[in-house]
Amino acid sequence: MTDYTPPEFKKPTGETEGKTITCKAAIAFEANQPLKVCDVEVAPPQEGEVRIKIAAAALCHTDAYTLSGQDPEGLFPCILGHEAAGVVESVGPGVTSVKPGDHVIPCYQANCGECEFCKHPRSNLCSAVRKWTGNGVMKTDEKTRFTYEGKPIYHFMGTSTFSQYTVVHEVAVAKIDEKAKLDSACLLGCGVSTGWGAVWNVVDVHEGATAAVFGIGAVGLACIEALKIKGAKQIIAVDINSNKFEFAKQWGATDCVNPNDYDKPIQEVIVEMNGGVDFSFECIGNVQVMRAALECCHKGWGESVVIGVAASGKEIATRPFQLVTGRVWRGSAFGMWKSRQQVPGLVDRMTSGELDVQKYITHQKAFADINDAFETLKRGDCLRCVLYFDEEDDARL
Amino acid sequence: MTDYTPPEFKKPTGETEGKTITCKAAIAFEANQPLKVCDVEVAPPQEGEVRIKIAAAALCHTDAYTLSGQDPEGLFPCILGHEAAGVVESVGPGVTSVKPGDHVIPCYQANCGECEFCKHPRSNLCSAVRKWTGNGVMKTDEKTRFTYEGKPIYHFMGTSTFSQYTVVHEVAVAKIDEKAKLDSACLLGCGVSTGWGAVWNVVDVHEGATAAVFGIGAVGLACIEALKIKGAKQIIAVDINSNKFEFAKQWGATDCVNPNDYDKPIQEVIVEMNGGVDFSFECIGNVQVMRAALECCHKGWGESVVIGVAASGKEIATRPFQLVTGRVWRGSAFGMWKSRQQVPGLVDRMTSGELDVQKYITHQKAFADINDAFETLKRGDCLRCVLYFDEEDDARL
Repeated sequence: MTDYTPPEFKKPTGETEGKTITCKAAIAFEANQPLKVCDVEVAPPQEGEVRIKIAAAALCHTDAYTLSGQDPEGLFPCILGHEAAGVVESVGPGVTSVKPGDHVIPCYQANCGECEFCKHPRSNLCSAVRKWTGNGVMKTDEKTRFTYEGKPIYHFMGTSTFSQYTVVHEVAVAKIDEKAKLDSACLLGCGVSTGWGAVWNVVDVHEGATAAVFGIGAVGLACIEALKIKGAKQIIAVDINSNKFEFAKQWGATDCVNPNDYDKPIQEVIVEMNGGVDFSFECIGNVQVMRAALECCHKGWGESVVIGVAASGKEIATRPFQLVTGRVWRGSAFGMWKSRQQVPGLVDRMTSGELDVQKYITHQKAFADINDAFETLKRGDCLRCVLYFDEEDDARL
Repeated sequence: MTDYTPPEFKKPTGETEGKTITCKAAIAFEANQPLKVCDVEVAPPQEGEVRIKIAAAALCHTDAYTLSGQDPEGLFPCILGHEAAGVVESVGPGVTSVKPGDHVIPCYQANCGECEFCKHPRSNLCSAVRKWTGNGVMKTDEKTRFTYEGKPIYHFMGTSTFSQYTVVHEVAVAKIDEKAKLDSACLLGCGVSTGWGAVWNVVDVHEGATAAVFGIGAVGLACIEALKIKGAKQIIAVDINSNKFEFAKQWGATDCVNPNDYDKPIQEVIVEMNGGVDFSFECIGNVQVMRAALECCHKGWGESVVIGVAASGKEIATRPFQLVTGRVWRGSAFGMWKSRQQVPGLVDRMTSGELDVQKYITHQKAFADINDAFETLKRGDCLRCVLYFDEEDDARL
């Protein structure tokens, strides 16, 4: 942890309601270029929209992925960021589930409660606004709420949390307990929830189960934590960076394996350990690792969950015999949590002390240092870097 | 149905016990050549083994696959066949679960009840004798019980039912009710059970579910039948031979789709019908069809089951996004039935009239016409061809 001391967050006042706000945001003008921290104009929320003052915004590898230009859905210029927490500044017409002053987490996976996905017990892939968030605009008028020098700036994942103020669809706003620390809660907007949910919602881990987790970042560690809570007796952490194993052990891994230490495929190494694992989790986004994760599962019943997001166009492959002999290949997005309905409960479990989120925050920085934060995120010692806006640098009307 | 009238089956008498029997068997001397019906010598059962007089033996596409030479486990010369029913002629030392005179189904998937696979609630892949059956020999002495002109003839799948008498491991013998018709019961040794089980054991089909079945042979029809019994509201039969659709409709399909009628991938056609299906089943063994079967599943929750056996070395592939957005890829062998424990129950459901197996028997032939039967099996109008031994052509001591 660096010696940076975050400023105290000031709740939004009512005076900005209905007006365009000028504030700091980090704009990705083009792929593979550093972000630029600029003054952007944030329009008032329209029908079914919520304007949020961001208290803390973490970086996630998906932001880096889109910035790299490899994301076919990536639109530029845009404002990235999708793992944050804040306070509602104002709401547009028709918004009933939150009001100004409410503490919230903007969720990249919406949860309208009405569509076929929301109504299905096994899916969280709400379709209410996906079409528009995928195009970087808001549903009401298919326009953006961000403007820079008179030109529209695209939204990203329906959240765009690398801005002191952002506008989000109501169906994507989870209201949380005011007692929750916002800079811990922000991590529940993506990575940590994703790992927990993959273990708790996607498969049915029994006490005494064996498991392998591929990729020891925040998501992989959240998987390890969730497995430990479920009573798994063997948790194998797999990473090609052995420096990660200190984290893995702290979080609860019983074995740490570096594929580079072996001259045979890692799936063979794991199968030789115990016949294979009951469950495996791929937290990287590498299709070769996804294959290894499936094939290291125990014949007859092992289940593998794809969590990582692979680069565009990449495909997974295996011999069908792997499935015919009983292995199951699954995947999940945002840990299958129904965001508005279930994230508040996760926040409560954090606030009660049952779940410790603070330990995932290895770095804190001023928002102005966002490009430095991206570099930090690539390092083996960084799990999550949380950014804070400078409260002296007030937003203007 | 041809006008062939099967002979009346004569139960084995005690006189052959402990002696080598000479009887008719169809030997596959080499890959891709017609079988030869010869007089083979069948040695008495050793420790843990059962000698069975076969009453009716059906042909399955897996027999044809191994005969074609594409099966890397295929050993020649061998006696094929794995879908049959018969009566125990004699048992070796230590055999307690069956006795001479018992009606039985030899099961290619053993079920010892003791190994980790048998004890696991979600697996039927008993490992007790797999190592030996895969090598075409018996476990006790790693030798074969079949001899032709003084040379050993390999066993196949631990069953070798294309012989009037065969020797099988006790752990692979399911004792069934004597009231069951043996020539219907024989189909429960593979294809029909495989289809039923894929629907009833591998996934959890709810009333009102939608499903697609790829490949309308006996296995695919058994899937359709099982789906109908589960109350599926839409059952889409998919085959490139539209002649199969008459069967599909009789069995309960609500829609029939021929991929050759469309100029886009069949998965797109099905997704456009209803957003995709809740469940799909691949009953062919074609890796491209396996992909289509996965990708025609509904986003968020659709599950696909690989049943067909692909050619050696072939791989399945898809974009991981298919799994991340909630589809599940599974597979099963022998419908996940624990053979010795569960096949007798299926036979009872057949005997009680609840399940009609007779309708899968489209052809009956004399065992001597086995090569003709293989040709018949390739035709669109053949589901199952059952072979009967000529009782005039008695086995000799």
